[in-house]
Amino acid sequence: MKILVVNSNTTRAVTDTIAAEAQLAASPGTEIVAVTAPFGPAAIQGRTDAVIAAHATLEAIIRHPGPVDAAVIACFSDPGLMAARDAAGFPVVGIAEASMLTACMLGARFAVVTVAPGTVRPIHELAAAYGLAQRLASVRALDVGVLESHADREGTVRGLKGLIERAASEDRADVAILGGAVTAGMARQLSAGSPIPVLDGVACAVRQAELLAGLGRKARS
Amino acid sequence: MKILVVNSNTTRAVTDTIAAEAQLAASPGTEIVAVTAPFGPAAIQGRTDAVIAAHATLEAIIRHPGPVDAAVIACFSDPGLMAARDAAGFPVVGIAEASMLTACMLGARFAVVTVAPGTVRPIHELAAAYGLAQRLASVRALDVGVLESHADREGTVRGLKGLIERAASEDRADVAILGGAVTAGMARQLSAGSPIPVLDGVACAVRQAELLAGLGRKARS
Amino acid sequence: MKILVVNSNTTRAVTDTIAAEAQLAASPGTEIVAVTAPFGPAAIQGRTDAVIAAHATLEAIIRHPGPVDAAVIACFSDPGLMAARDAAGFPVVGIAEASMLTACMLGARFAVVTVAPGTVRPIHELAAAYGLAQRLASVRALDVGVLESHADREGTVRGLKGLIERAASEDRADVAILGGAVTAGMARQLSAGSPIPVLDGVACAVRQAELLAGLGRKARS
Amino acid sequence: MKILVVNSNTTRAVTDTIAAEAQLAASPGTEIVAVTAPFGPAAIQGRTDAVIAAHATLEAIIRHPGPVDAAVIACFSDPGLMAARDAAGFPVVGIAEASMLTACMLGARFAVVTVAPGTVRPIHELAAAYGLAQRLASVRALDVGVLESHADREGTVRGLKGLIERAASEDRADVAILGGAVTAGMARQLSAGSPIPVLDGVACAVRQAELLAGLGRKARS
Amino acid sequence: MKILVVNSNTTRAVTDTIAAEAQLAASPGTEIVAVTAPFGPAAIQGRTDAVIAAHATLEAIIRHPGPVDAAVIACFSDPGLMAARDAAGFPVVGIAEASMLTACMLGARFAVVTVAPGTVRPIHELAAAYGLAQRLASVRALDVGVLESHADREGTVRGLKGLIERAASEDRADVAILGGAVTAGMARQLSAGSPIPVLDGVACAVRQAELLAGLGRKARS
Amino acid sequence: MKILVVNSNTTRAVTDTIAAEAQLAASPGTEIVAVTAPFGPAAIQGRTDAVIAAHATLEAIIRHPGPVDAAVIACFSDPGLMAARDAAGFPVVGIAEASMLTACMLGARFAVVTVAPGTVRPIHELAAAYGLAQRLASVRALDVGVLESHADREGTVRGLKGLIERAASEDRADVAILGGAVTAGMARQLSAGSPIPVLDGVACAVRQAELLAGLGRKARS
Repeated sequence: MKILVVNSNTTRAVTDTIAAEAQLAASPGTEIVAVTAPFGPAAIQGRTDAVIAAHATLEAIIRHPGPVDAAVIACFSDPGLMAARDAAGFPVVGIAEASMLTACMLGARFAVVTVAPGTVRPIHELAAAYGLAQRLASVRALDVGVLESHADREGTVRGLKGLIERAASEDRADVAILGGAVTAGMARQLSAGSPIPVLDGVACAVRQAELLAGLGRKARS
Repeated sequence: MKILVVNSNTTRAVTDTIAAEAQLAASPGTEIVAVTAPFGPAAIQGRTDAVIAAHATLEAIIRHPGPVDAAVIACFSDPGLMAARDAAGFPVVGIAEASMLTACMLGARFAVVTVAPGTVRPIHELAAAYGLAQRLASVRALDVGVLESHADREGTVRGLKGLIERAASEDRADVAILGGAVTAGMARQLSAGSPIPVLDGVACAVRQAELLAGLGRKARS
Repeated sequence: MKILVVNSNTTRAVTDTIAAEAQLAASPGTEIVAVTAPFGPAAIQGRTDAVIAAHATLEAIIRHPGPVDAAVIACFSDPGLMAARDAAGFPVVGIAEASMLTACMLGARFAVVTVAPGTVRPIHELAAAYGLAQRLASVRALDVGVLESHADREGTVRGLKGLIERAASEDRADVAILGGAVTAGMARQLSAGSPIPVLDGVACAVRQAELLAGLGRKARS
Repeated sequence: MKILVVNSNTTRAVTDTIAAEAQLAASPGTEIVAVTAPFGPAAIQGRTDAVIAAHATLEAIIRHPGPVDAAVIACFSDPGLMAARDAAGFPVVGIAEASMLTACMLGARFAVVTVAPGTVRPIHELAAAYGLAQRLASVRALDVGVLESHADREGTVRGLKGLIERAASEDRADVAILGGAVTAGMARQLSAGSPIPVLDGVACAVRQAELLAGLGRKARS
Repeated sequence: MKILVVNSNTTRAVTDTIAAEAQLAASPGTEIVAVTAPFGPAAIQGRTDAVIAAHATLEAIIRHPGPVDAAVIACFSDPGLMAARDAAGFPVVGIAEASMLTACMLGARFAVVTVAPGTVRPIHELAAAYGLAQRLASVRALDVGVLESHADREGTVRGLKGLIERAASEDRADVAILGGAVTAGMARQLSAGSPIPVLDGVACAVRQAELLAGLGRKARS
Repeated sequence: MKILVVNSNTTRAVTDTIAAEAQLAASPGTEIVAVTAPFGPAAIQGRTDAVIAAHATLEAIIRHPGPVDAAVIACFSDPGLMAARDAAGFPVVGIAEASMLTACMLGARFAVVTVAPGTVRPIHELAAAYGLAQRLASVRALDVGVLESHADREGTVRGLKGLIERAASEDRADVAILGGAVTAGMARQLSAGSPIPVLDGVACAVRQAELLAGLGRKARS
């Protein structure tokens, strides 16, 4: 099975990190093909960036040469998801939608933790748009910034650990989702001593993409 | 991987059908252990039945001897789901929740088609309880009854085919879910010429159970 | 008029307390018949307990020998209420629903105060399921535990008094409901100096059961 | 116990009908004091009428000489209800709110049947304002007009009977409410052969007013 | 163009302030005709006042001699708005609805700041009734009282400035609305150094009234 | 005052029609500057088109040389509206949002009539996203197609007349909105004999843009 994973921003180093994590999460026999957005912002930090990234992500999916079995949009605002789903001849999942729906099967309410404070309100809006407002216990952000969190991986994991513990005790969340791409891989470290399950968006999306492709659905043609 | 599949009613023939379909849907290497509700109604046809079946399903899961990796509740009202999730040390999924969440990743709105007219309103209420009211395009029922539909499999498939076509054209559904256990296996027949993907609850639930168990989540101890 | 009052847990001492309070609340000429759940948990403290208690409560109502005019489910999660309503040939009310609907006729928003912190979230969910989310000002809990609150009645009344005052001033509640069975009878003590009316679930439910039976409704047969 | 019943329009004949029905519904020992709105429209048929009637009803309640134990607003748009509740030193109930809340204790969903087609949309809006939109199965109207329905009582009962049967079978309502004052008393005739319970707004409101006054609530002063 | 502006309370000094601000906000060629409520409370401070003011405002509009092109209800609870709209042969706008809808075109979420703490909850309810609950970031009140704020204009502007800054930074509001008539004119002073746009209800309503009249709508005859 | 009007598709003939209508709707002294989307689809007929058009519209606004006082997005799906609002230093309005909000000030519920059946569901979703779901009475479509409706202007006006009459009588709409750009100008013809006011999106948006620019808001810088 071949899964196309699109990094919606234009920074290749982020594509590499996502590709590595996606391959780790995939089942044996699944091939990950990671691509970078053909144009647009280096990082997605606001509505303007998101509009351009949606277009770029859509182009990356519909212009991709050669067949794939499913596609993953690896950006926590799921840019262009519904349009790509309409346009593609195979299943398309976004890391936010996939991780939120997966979390719904593990508990009554989930929290999202992130390293980008500017995404707190958009994540609330996205959950509401998916009909999941009452399942979202809270969105908590580490106030360090995306690049700093990448540079100081140990400090970031420590900070996220604290957020997850507060989401469990104060917000009564049953599950935590790491809401971002820069934190890919940290869920494995954080799961160990956590009071609640910790989900990674990229891992959930790759698995759900495999599941959907395996169901042999999307046979409209 | 070992998955416990619970038939929430006490009719063993239905357990056998569900077990066969679950095994067909499972990945290679997954073992299906199917059990019948230890007490309760032979068929679940109203709120009273559902209250008893919830208790019986819960007992079947928490009293099951020997370890399993996940459990599936194979009844489209998901009886006892949230309680079983709280009580078990492994992931538990219901066929209604699992198929509705899976459908959300295949299109904007899904329809449920069923052979039991009495479940139309409960299915609307269940979708609303999961926060998915605006994703539910319609619930359409074949007015034949559960046992009759089991006896006349060809006629049932023909009837469901018509319902799915109307769900697609009149209700503008993007995906159809077969809402019941007696229809297990018919999705494979119906997918062929269907204008929209057709999902089977048991198949979706088994796959989602595998996915959740594979994520190594639910490590609360 | 004869009213069946079901204690949904299996602790007979609690049944006695409820029976006494129910008789005090009833009109002259009303006979209270109190029964204890035939099986299940000694106290209802989570979803698992609630599923078993729903079954036990349903059995207590439909297996009750001899005619009654109405039934009251005396547990603040209203276990089995909708199913019992479908199954019985007479009106059935739950103490949570009855007190919330009564409160709606006394003011714009009500608060629930309880001695069981673990019930805070379930009470929010129950109010939402009844469509009353926007009428619920707050749920406040005394962190003492059910048995301790029973042992220290004076301290519990003092603690609840403080919660009610904060519900009135900080949450702007117009009415307070005592959310539990162990607090039955305390509303009489608390009403005296309270800034807002204080309702007891058992008293409201007994009165509403009398009212419904008196209307001569439920004549479906 | 003394209950003030306010006819929100200025037609004395309607006041007399309401008073008679209220006295029939009341418990032994309850005295009904019926008054007519001191000014305003002869019948309430739109938003403009409702605004004036709200003021007139409020005046009727707060200017009433001598003590009463509770008040009933006998108009199915509940004009001035929330304001009267804030202003009065005793419980105030409206016939729409009281009958809708009573209906909630008799089944999952209620229908309202009326002789005034112009009130269909306002009744939907009122139920939504009370948080009961999802409990309202339907509003069905007989297209005869208020005065005609009063003149032809037999024909009206026959027409309402048909509406209630369709509300039960087509809209799957569990309870029917007669939504108006002109139909006061017809519920007794209609209950006999009805597939679902039939509630009268004035009767429900009088009983709920007795209940609230009996609880000894509203002791803020 | 001639616009009728109704002060819903009976205090003529407030009418004069509103009239002056309305004229300042109006386009060249627009004539403002300001009237005072013919009866009712001197200030609107609760539900009882609002019911009387709704009637008085309605009378002021439908009894006004001579033709006008549109009317403005200058009270932040929009008393009688929907009824006046039904009754009048020209467009009618309320200062709350007009400013909230205008704010929606300037940003995702708006805050309301006011000098009357008692109006905080009603403003939340009004926004919800208009369907704008999720667009309302917060309602913040200066705890000084209406008359005091009028007497100490400089202190009030200083206090409101602080509230607006907190609405922008803590509540993440994109726009601020001055929710009241006594603060008419202060928006001009507050806009200068504000981090977000500041809207005045009277100014928005006058402009929207001009717009609606200009569209030549409301030609129902 | 100078207002930039963006046609979100790449068909210049449509830009010309929109420009003419915008100029007719504008106040004396307002200059309309109409531009065509710099890239993207010739007509916007689905989610994929809408994603590309959002990017193109955003570019047209932020790359426009020379100062403007406000901008109008002339496409009934409001592509890129929220992002353009964040990015621009002046007010930006969309024809759907502007006409829906204007309609809210003319009546309780509005209908949208269109010549493109494929936009019925997206218009429902857009209204819901703006919080106006309960204000939307219905969306009715003429099944003729965009180009055909442009070719047969007389037939289209006749067809829309019928839809508006049904929206008024069957859906009880208080206002009708022409939902599209190809119908610009027809509102003037349709208003004459219509039972309810008829609004044109382009006209409403131009007027609202003038209003917002006139308020001197959006002074964040």
